[in-house]
Amino acid sequence: MKDLPLSKVYQLLEPGPVVLLTTARGGRTNVMTMSWHMMVEFEPPLIACVVSSNNYSFAALRRTGECVIAIPALKLAPKVVKVGNSSGRDIDKFTAFGLTAVPAAQVAAPLIAECFANLECKVADTRMVRQYNLFILDVCKAWLDPRQRSPKTIHHHGYGKFVVDGRTVRLKSKMR
Amino acid sequence: MKDLPLSKVYQLLEPGPVVLLTTARGGRTNVMTMSWHMMVEFEPPLIACVVSSNNYSFAALRRTGECVIAIPALKLAPKVVKVGNSSGRDIDKFTAFGLTAVPAAQVAAPLIAECFANLECKVADTRMVRQYNLFILDVCKAWLDPRQRSPKTIHHHGYGKFVVDGRTVRLKSKMR
Repeated sequence: MKDLPLSKVYQLLEPGPVVLLTTARGGRTNVMTMSWHMMVEFEPPLIACVVSSNNYSFAALRRTGECVIAIPALKLAPKVVKVGNSSGRDIDKFTAFGLTAVPAAQVAAPLIAECFANLECKVADTRMVRQYNLFILDVCKAWLDPRQRSPKTIHHHGYGKFVVDGRTVRLKSKMR
Repeated sequence: MKDLPLSKVYQLLEPGPVVLLTTARGGRTNVMTMSWHMMVEFEPPLIACVVSSNNYSFAALRRTGECVIAIPALKLAPKVVKVGNSSGRDIDKFTAFGLTAVPAAQVAAPLIAECFANLECKVADTRMVRQYNLFILDVCKAWLDPRQRSPKTIHHHGYGKFVVDGRTVRLKSKMR
């Protein structure tokens, strides 16, 4: 995987793809599926996300203050769903579903080799955690897999209905 | 437009579409384009969004505590970009771009007739506004246009690159 400039991170998350979130606590890694995230700042990139306190990942994220947001392309969709349908309380999801944990540079949480992008994140603000399970994350390092060209992401519409990226439209937008 | 049960609102926003946000202040309506939003709670539905203090809509949202999130389908993409490239400081965007403002039921901000869904929102939490321009919105009423069948939404990848919804995949997900 190659460095991705932090200024380009928003281009990955602004479209709203389903992502995986990894954590590591006491040498034990875990991964969950997440769709409730948004950009908060371009650069340095800040992300807001909701991780339910019902999720096993919640305590690890809260305690360690670190995670990786890994973005899967379409071909990983079946594994993404399996990750979302199971809990780290019961199984080691990396082993169970054949995902490869790769050491990150700045956080203990692992990158996922099969994902086309990986964002190393540190929790920057926990003031909204108690009420909304809402974390503000600071992206400190970003990786892109150049071998995955034009990856199509998936978007969750509820109850196992996913819409896959279709065609690209270019319009003269001043929006960054 | 017909009532949409509030329990279904997350299915519209979780996929991460580009949306329009309308406000009304002192009898003057405005509309902006927005991509930085996420669900925070299923029901009653809570949404987080970032509205930059550089946007003309910011003051109206801050002062009135009300807005409508309107979701445009692909055919509106050219207008969505025009809305995003202009400011309510300079023009009346509804008139300039041929968008139809329709009175909402519970907020002063207007619905947009051309959008396939409209969510009436009240600002529920402003604690993160000063630092992040992040608003928590409470969806109090939702509308769906049944004449727009299987609308395809657009997703912004930066600098005028939009990806349109493609095919649908159904996987056995327990994820709500």
